[in-house]
Amino acid sequence: MKIGFIGLGHMGAPMARNLLKAGHALVVFDVVQRNVDALKAAGAAAAGSAAQAADQAELVITMLPSSPHVKTVYLGDEGVLAGVARGVTLVDSSTIDPHTAREVAARAEQHGNPMADAPVSGGTGGAEAGTLTFMVGGDAAVFRQIEPILRHMGRNIVHCGAGGTGQVAKICNNLLLGITMIGVSEAMNLGTALGIDAKVLAGIINTSSGRCWSSDTYNPYPGVMENVPAARGYSGGFGADLMLKDLGLAVDAAKQSKQPVLLGAAAQQLYQMFSAQGAGGLDFSAIINLYKPKS
Amino acid sequence: MKIGFIGLGHMGAPMARNLLKAGHALVVFDVVQRNVDALKAAGAAAAGSAAQAADQAELVITMLPSSPHVKTVYLGDEGVLAGVARGVTLVDSSTIDPHTAREVAARAEQHGNPMADAPVSGGTGGAEAGTLTFMVGGDAAVFRQIEPILRHMGRNIVHCGAGGTGQVAKICNNLLLGITMIGVSEAMNLGTALGIDAKVLAGIINTSSGRCWSSDTYNPYPGVMENVPAARGYSGGFGADLMLKDLGLAVDAAKQSKQPVLLGAAAQQLYQMFSAQGAGGLDFSAIINLYKPKS
Amino acid sequence: MKIGFIGLGHMGAPMARNLLKAGHALVVFDVVQRNVDALKAAGAAAAGSAAQAADQAELVITMLPSSPHVKTVYLGDEGVLAGVARGVTLVDSSTIDPHTAREVAARAEQHGNPMADAPVSGGTGGAEAGTLTFMVGGDAAVFRQIEPILRHMGRNIVHCGAGGTGQVAKICNNLLLGITMIGVSEAMNLGTALGIDAKVLAGIINTSSGRCWSSDTYNPYPGVMENVPAARGYSGGFGADLMLKDLGLAVDAAKQSKQPVLLGAAAQQLYQMFSAQGAGGLDFSAIINLYKPKS
Amino acid sequence: MKIGFIGLGHMGAPMARNLLKAGHALVVFDVVQRNVDALKAAGAAAAGSAAQAADQAELVITMLPSSPHVKTVYLGDEGVLAGVARGVTLVDSSTIDPHTAREVAARAEQHGNPMADAPVSGGTGGAEAGTLTFMVGGDAAVFRQIEPILRHMGRNIVHCGAGGTGQVAKICNNLLLGITMIGVSEAMNLGTALGIDAKVLAGIINTSSGRCWSSDTYNPYPGVMENVPAARGYSGGFGADLMLKDLGLAVDAAKQSKQPVLLGAAAQQLYQMFSAQGAGGLDFSAIINLYKPKS
Repeated sequence: MKIGFIGLGHMGAPMARNLLKAGHALVVFDVVQRNVDALKAAGAAAAGSAAQAADQAELVITMLPSSPHVKTVYLGDEGVLAGVARGVTLVDSSTIDPHTAREVAARAEQHGNPMADAPVSGGTGGAEAGTLTFMVGGDAAVFRQIEPILRHMGRNIVHCGAGGTGQVAKICNNLLLGITMIGVSEAMNLGTALGIDAKVLAGIINTSSGRCWSSDTYNPYPGVMENVPAARGYSGGFGADLMLKDLGLAVDAAKQSKQPVLLGAAAQQLYQMFSAQGAGGLDFSAIINLYKPKS
Repeated sequence: MKIGFIGLGHMGAPMARNLLKAGHALVVFDVVQRNVDALKAAGAAAAGSAAQAADQAELVITMLPSSPHVKTVYLGDEGVLAGVARGVTLVDSSTIDPHTAREVAARAEQHGNPMADAPVSGGTGGAEAGTLTFMVGGDAAVFRQIEPILRHMGRNIVHCGAGGTGQVAKICNNLLLGITMIGVSEAMNLGTALGIDAKVLAGIINTSSGRCWSSDTYNPYPGVMENVPAARGYSGGFGADLMLKDLGLAVDAAKQSKQPVLLGAAAQQLYQMFSAQGAGGLDFSAIINLYKPKS
Repeated sequence: MKIGFIGLGHMGAPMARNLLKAGHALVVFDVVQRNVDALKAAGAAAAGSAAQAADQAELVITMLPSSPHVKTVYLGDEGVLAGVARGVTLVDSSTIDPHTAREVAARAEQHGNPMADAPVSGGTGGAEAGTLTFMVGGDAAVFRQIEPILRHMGRNIVHCGAGGTGQVAKICNNLLLGITMIGVSEAMNLGTALGIDAKVLAGIINTSSGRCWSSDTYNPYPGVMENVPAARGYSGGFGADLMLKDLGLAVDAAKQSKQPVLLGAAAQQLYQMFSAQGAGGLDFSAIINLYKPKS
Repeated sequence: MKIGFIGLGHMGAPMARNLLKAGHALVVFDVVQRNVDALKAAGAAAAGSAAQAADQAELVITMLPSSPHVKTVYLGDEGVLAGVARGVTLVDSSTIDPHTAREVAARAEQHGNPMADAPVSGGTGGAEAGTLTFMVGGDAAVFRQIEPILRHMGRNIVHCGAGGTGQVAKICNNLLLGITMIGVSEAMNLGTALGIDAKVLAGIINTSSGRCWSSDTYNPYPGVMENVPAARGYSGGFGADLMLKDLGLAVDAAKQSKQPVLLGAAAQQLYQMFSAQGAGGLDFSAIINLYKPKS
């Protein structure tokens, strides 16, 4: 299938490569020429704009950093809707606020293009390995159509409901993830300060009611697990500034829907404080260091 | 074995019954005569004080509501140390602050009695079924000695380290549990307000990085799971006021060890607010109602 | 002077009346015809759009509910810039985010119109009495020009600095106000629960380091002061939902400028929780009821 | 009058000196001999224990660091009650929890000694200058009796009500003070990050509804005021660790009286975080640095 792929950053580039490997024809675009060149070397055709990448495509996939980028790439003068044929399905894998996702999808549908929001989790590791989780919001028919394509990039393709619910699922999961990571950080620091061994404490939590992914799969306390960011100085992984962005999306969406999210807002502020200390580039589990006495 | 068992409330009574069923001889005491009578009817001998229950016992087990009770029962004029023979091992299954646990254990050891703290999780259901988890702090030799006895009352008997670490494990787990339960409540309420189906959202969280016991085993949103308090109007289970007590123990211990626990303290205050609204008797997952618009 | 006045709600209407009383000629517009008719009865001329109200005006003043309204009224097809003559000064007294204020001002200046942001404090009482405080952001020359006009509507006209700083001053003040009001609520409730008389406690706070406007001028505890909302069931005053809006503006601005505001975000969430309970129409000092046990 | 004075630290020593200057005869005690020697050099008589200092005294005043010290000094084997004559009035100026204050006062009254709690505010500066504020809890008759003596050490002597209410007033004021100081820090940092001049912002706040002692008398932003800790690198003043202690007392008292204090608990945790970074010895207004991006 001929696919227009727009947005070739740390996530988009490996996702596009996996589509090439699966035998699809790609026409790619990115505002950074170097990113386009790299995909061209891997076998993609290059376009000079989002509109050109969408022109003649049978499917368009985008992977962009934030809501304003998504608006520009879809609705701008040289955007997707300016180039794409009526009837072609559009898939946005960016993580953005549900409100913007629904607004852009409505504009696409006015233009005659079905659209799905399909944000991912799994990080750059998952993008490279083709093991991402896709959370898809859109019509059932659209989901059936795009599911086989997404499967070349991900392992878990979940239909979340109508348009926008992919974004909703993503930000609600990450709201909870930010809270549990800070919760685990507080519990591990408190326990070890009170004299229990970190591995023993993690072992008990992981078989008790405090059990959570942030403890049993991604424990932030150094020495508890191998092959996690805490075991390598918090390098790699999912950056604290990305968590800060997602918490911001969730708290904003809560404001718009008049839902209190007190722990979520506190988690956002703690990540903001951590980022302001210059540590936003570390993995998000490094937030545990905000709690540690300086030595 | 002849066991002195003191404290026959909702947790202590079924625990004592399980020891009787296993063939142990029990001498029991409680300040509420009705509680003593019930155990007597089940085959236990009754004592008139903690000291009398400990007298001639080969092992003493206590299950009490709070730190001051533990101090009185062990160190008071008619307390355990006033009656027990030197060398007899003492096991306190109350959930109390680690500081008091260590203080009482030190007094017991001065008196010639090895002591372990062994708080439990699993609630009254686990107490009745004999499937509690025991978190044991004390010497390895003491742990080996009491482990077979505790196994009549629990399924999971964990050695956490030196004296006091059983309490540390318990309060750190429950600190995290209180945080995750509120986190799940915020995420579920936000998601459904934004239009995603509650079961779908829980399904995604439970297979993603937001996964936690509060979501996959004890989800607070009505209609997501069966056989949880949310499915029966939040009756039964682990009371909100008990969670409030445990969060208080954790936050106090954090203060004493100079560890910040910002989300933990916020969780404590939210449970306090919920309790002040008259809802402290409901299961702790009912905290989700603090977030719901009044209808 | 001939003034175009747009936005005739609870605040705008009395402000416009005070300009009429001072002898200015007003051409007014509002999307609610009833609001226009009321001002017409008071002597203003009516316009059919913002553009028409601005046409032939020597000064334009707007008083609108939120950022999107400000964008539409200034930049829309029938907006101020579509009607106003080059060189005429524009004054926006709405409370909006500083980012939008600066964006609209930049567009106005491209169009040849100097612009100032001039949000107010003082509530409807101050608007009617002509005793508002105006916080003005804009060039010194613009400030000198508009200051005499604003003085017909307010007592305190403060130049805050360059464009946008009027909004900055307003949201920073109200961020702090929201925090202190909740702080006073916590302190008063705690003190009285611990047995001190509310008036005695307020008296001590008001002459000590806890002294603040929320305690010495607008105390939320019933019975401490007369002539405040707490003395009349929290009716009148500055609505909790308006405080919620201003806290939202401040926390959003903090996000954009990467500044942590932890207590501010918590205050926002507490007001959101209070509003979700159906109490957003009460005066913002009613937040003290969120803390009171239900009787 | 012959006064027994116990506790000669940074606060107690200058208070005792002011009593000497006023012509009273002092018998002093402190566990640190150096502190006793200093007062002896100033004209006091030295005692070897609290009991001896109280023996023959016509009034006893204590100034101690925390609740356990107060219990020991009054109720211990060599404590005040072991030495003092029946009928002599006791005044404790320590800042402690109201519960302990009431417990010790009850024991004193059983012993035949009227007792008042009389914590102070004003810091070491106020102690030296004799300008402290005394918040007195106790019977009206006791208040009338001690008021002239306290006036040698303070300017503002306030009767707060029955025993314990002095402590209640103190901790409620300081709860609010900790909250407002962080609130001012957030507002000042946010405003300046958004481009307003710090002095201009403070000026607006100080004449608006955000006005508070933390802004108009003790502003934490450097350059806004002279003669405050912010103007001298946050040295001197009221230490962050002392604020942390007082917030801890307030939050604990709230727990005991089942009152939620959400912002108060968050303030406590932020001071704990600040202290854990090694900054607890700075003035409490230095908390603004927790919010500043590292340069």
